[in-house]
Amino acid sequence: MVNSAATLDMIRNSIRDIPNWPEPGVMFRDISTLLQSPEAFRAVVDILVERYRDKGVNVVAGLDARGFIFGPVVAYELGIGFVPIRKKGKLPYTTVSKSYTLEYGDINTVEMHIDAVHRGEKVLVIDDLIATGGTMLAACSLIKELGAEVHECAVVSDLLYLNGSKLIREQGFDVFSILEYK
Amino acid sequence: MVNSAATLDMIRNSIRDIPNWPEPGVMFRDISTLLQSPEAFRAVVDILVERYRDKGVNVVAGLDARGFIFGPVVAYELGIGFVPIRKKGKLPYTTVSKSYTLEYGDINTVEMHIDAVHRGEKVLVIDDLIATGGTMLAACSLIKELGAEVHECAVVSDLLYLNGSKLIREQGFDVFSILEYK
Repeated sequence: MVNSAATLDMIRNSIRDIPNWPEPGVMFRDISTLLQSPEAFRAVVDILVERYRDKGVNVVAGLDARGFIFGPVVAYELGIGFVPIRKKGKLPYTTVSKSYTLEYGDINTVEMHIDAVHRGEKVLVIDDLIATGGTMLAACSLIKELGAEVHECAVVSDLLYLNGSKLIREQGFDVFSILEYK
Repeated sequence: MVNSAATLDMIRNSIRDIPNWPEPGVMFRDISTLLQSPEAFRAVVDILVERYRDKGVNVVAGLDARGFIFGPVVAYELGIGFVPIRKKGKLPYTTVSKSYTLEYGDINTVEMHIDAVHRGEKVLVIDDLIATGGTMLAACSLIKELGAEVHECAVVSDLLYLNGSKLIREQGFDVFSILEYK
């Protein structure tokens, strides 16, 4: 098993806690130290690849910007394509868009190209983290709007105390996280 | 050879040209269609991995946000770590920063964590594209400031007519691009 307790501890210990960032009272989980560790980064990728291999997933979607770090390598290993879900105004072709409330209060909008996914495709959505779940839920909504199916939402870390994964599941989407923070 | 003429044609044909984006007169090279093609995405990654395997590269640095798509998968395949070079205000730990003039006129600032690379390390810098070269040159400057060495700057596409790669080479850094646009 690639996701043994020792492996999960190694991954968790590779994440740096930054208190009071980006706002007072927030403990930020900094994955840059995870990415600097070849062992921790490999373990994260391998857990995701093992979980989704031979599941009939057609494409990986990654969320701007840290989802771009994990999504493409999983897509490469699965031998499938990658589609970016981006912040407003970043995609050059015709888009669908969805607005939502951010973790720290502001309104944000995410966009996908209208030809990014196709009717009937199974899409794996990847990001680094689920906090309040707004970004992930907006992404799932766009995928559904384009006629595709969300196979699962996969993240490295789920901040359970913000109830984002609960909200996403209540809307009918499956969630998998490698680590949970209580 | 993974970078045969047929492979390079296949990669080039997978990129979508978007006229007049983000500004009138600009032809935008949209890699989202490349990423959607498992064959084209794999070919790009494999060319980079073949080029940098066994070269003693210690870490891959990727530029926010499209460099995050290609950099980590190359790092994974090389068995080394990845460090993000980000737009101002996105990195939570202590940073070094460098400002430069953007392709389309505005001033931008990029940042790296002060412990992202270390003295003597050989760093491969990856982005999707070199246009005027400002972002890449700022990234190289930060890597040098932290005492590490830029092994090479690698991109999918070099917009030769904007002279960015010429500027970067004049500053003493090597550049490799899979495709060139004249």
